[in-house]
Amino acid sequence: MTQPVVGHLDPVFFQIMDDVCEMLRRIFHTGNTVTMPISATGTGAMETACVNVLERGDTAIVCRNGYFGVRLADIAQRCGANTVMVDSPWGKPADLNALEDALNANPGTKMVGLVHAETSTGAITPLQDAIDLTHRHGALVIADAVTSLGSHDVQVDDWDIDVCYSASQKCLGAPPGLAPISFGERAMDVINKRESTVESFYFNLQGVAEYWNETQRVYHHTSPITMIYAMRESLRMMMEEGLEEQHDRHARVATGLRAGLTAMGLDLATDPGYQLNPITVVNAPEGVNEAEVRARLLNDFDIEVSGGLGEFRGRVWRVGMMGNGARETSVLALLSALEVILGDMDYEVAYGASVAAAQRSFANHGD
Amino acid sequence: MTQPVVGHLDPVFFQIMDDVCEMLRRIFHTGNTVTMPISATGTGAMETACVNVLERGDTAIVCRNGYFGVRLADIAQRCGANTVMVDSPWGKPADLNALEDALNANPGTKMVGLVHAETSTGAITPLQDAIDLTHRHGALVIADAVTSLGSHDVQVDDWDIDVCYSASQKCLGAPPGLAPISFGERAMDVINKRESTVESFYFNLQGVAEYWNETQRVYHHTSPITMIYAMRESLRMMMEEGLEEQHDRHARVATGLRAGLTAMGLDLATDPGYQLNPITVVNAPEGVNEAEVRARLLNDFDIEVSGGLGEFRGRVWRVGMMGNGARETSVLALLSALEVILGDMDYEVAYGASVAAAQRSFANHGD
Repeated sequence: MTQPVVGHLDPVFFQIMDDVCEMLRRIFHTGNTVTMPISATGTGAMETACVNVLERGDTAIVCRNGYFGVRLADIAQRCGANTVMVDSPWGKPADLNALEDALNANPGTKMVGLVHAETSTGAITPLQDAIDLTHRHGALVIADAVTSLGSHDVQVDDWDIDVCYSASQKCLGAPPGLAPISFGERAMDVINKRESTVESFYFNLQGVAEYWNETQRVYHHTSPITMIYAMRESLRMMMEEGLEEQHDRHARVATGLRAGLTAMGLDLATDPGYQLNPITVVNAPEGVNEAEVRARLLNDFDIEVSGGLGEFRGRVWRVGMMGNGARETSVLALLSALEVILGDMDYEVAYGASVAAAQRSFANHGD
Repeated sequence: MTQPVVGHLDPVFFQIMDDVCEMLRRIFHTGNTVTMPISATGTGAMETACVNVLERGDTAIVCRNGYFGVRLADIAQRCGANTVMVDSPWGKPADLNALEDALNANPGTKMVGLVHAETSTGAITPLQDAIDLTHRHGALVIADAVTSLGSHDVQVDDWDIDVCYSASQKCLGAPPGLAPISFGERAMDVINKRESTVESFYFNLQGVAEYWNETQRVYHHTSPITMIYAMRESLRMMMEEGLEEQHDRHARVATGLRAGLTAMGLDLATDPGYQLNPITVVNAPEGVNEAEVRARLLNDFDIEVSGGLGEFRGRVWRVGMMGNGARETSVLALLSALEVILGDMDYEVAYGASVAAAQRSFANHGD
């Protein structure tokens, strides 16, 4: 990011843009031409997906099993879609039976929104069955992979995801501010056949894609040059490590973290069969002031743990171990800090037990 | 930008946010509480202004005297407003008589869009009379100060601008990717009394402002932390130099540049009474391949000059001398490079004359 800022129409920058797009295609596992970063955070990509696909009066179904499903439904509604909610409990994956009922009850549904990795609850929703089901009903799938891309398998082509997006600052390991997105042919057909103008200029895919397309390069808005430099570098680092290796590292670190937290007597908020690796959501124990614990972690130990969002506000801790931060040492530092803080709060702590459990887990990983 | 990326809800970051807002208020010359950077480029701020103020069926008037006026009208239309165009020739300021006619012909107009500094033509439109006129008709003024903020006077409170926005990468001297915006009380009243939901989530002012407001800090979207660091530093550098001094530097550099270009026999595309300082728009002389000149400037001299947009495409060079780039040495480098390139192209050049004219202008500045 300290490289000189060149112009957004400088041929030198075009090469950087092409590098970014090519690496994003490898990470999304797609041949989709329309694959690039949106000049906004993940929420901007969520809006880009909805505002281009949906027209006023369309029907959309959104599976809500956490805060970002709620947000996706909100955005679909702002786009003027009749939005049908398929709710399932926070901490669990989306409910496919309820999705099937909703698709049956709403023939002509244009889009189904699914959150692959629900950052608010730590739950992953396996996508393949939901995608097949949605396609049998003739609808498009929009999949939110903000927290899964780079830590879990995301197969845009094999799974046949129509629109998939992520964000720079999670498992891709760049600073926040960019949001990669990929549109498949089925989605592009729908967008090209729109009757109404896309209601956003900034997120209008046609304009954005004409700038990113290597044969067009038409000015749409000034690209955030420095952020694109950062993303190229973070993607190169991913390529250097290898995608499989990066996924395995996230799994190893998360498994050790969960072992340590459990050894400390803490409960995880996420259905055991559906736990994300980059983020672990822990129920704050009764009688402990969860915000005070987070404040002490930050102030005394330089460790940031997030609080709960929405329904989980004030009830959980969300521990991110993602991108370059997903390291064994981060786990050990957190566990030992938590032991100290919880011990001070009269929570019964067997000092050292959590760190030992994590270490055993790391050592046994892959056996 | 090389500082560690902290969390968007870290108290350390809140202080940085407050610093940014406070300096932005000083630069906008406003006491407006709702003053902060949007997590997008200038076009995103343009959309933020329109999508929050306008509801479907409202009437908007947009003065179009260049490419960004055209864009502002496009965005107002995407917001569902009946959009009345007040056109005036490119290179000239907005036409206030025509604006008055349009206001008279469209009672109940909600918003008038004005581009203070038209980056595509190099023309500045003095705002005070247009604002007074608009307010007499009960409408709000949205003013685009993307290229003027930091190089020309922009007085949000004294002039009574209702919504004013800019961009990080022009005269504020930060990398592209953020767009400062300020909303006055009259605009906030209109927004608070909306009947319909704002159609964008990402640009929804209520959500953005709740995060930036120092007493709320509610998560809306992940802030582009590193970009905010960059903007704080660029604003500090502006404070160090002084706003008056920075304006004067832009004027001194632009005056010298214009003197040099004129001495080279080139014509400026902008009405002489309304020339912006940060950007100088030059008519490419007949018989000269303008794109080739720009390519040689970039490849042989590392100097980027922009081509024309819209009506001006293929006809003009746009020379930006803005932010930290607005320096006498930049002017001399460009003029001497242009002499070499144009001389090679059988354009008659009196070598050295343009540089001498610029030097005389610099020396006489302020007399």
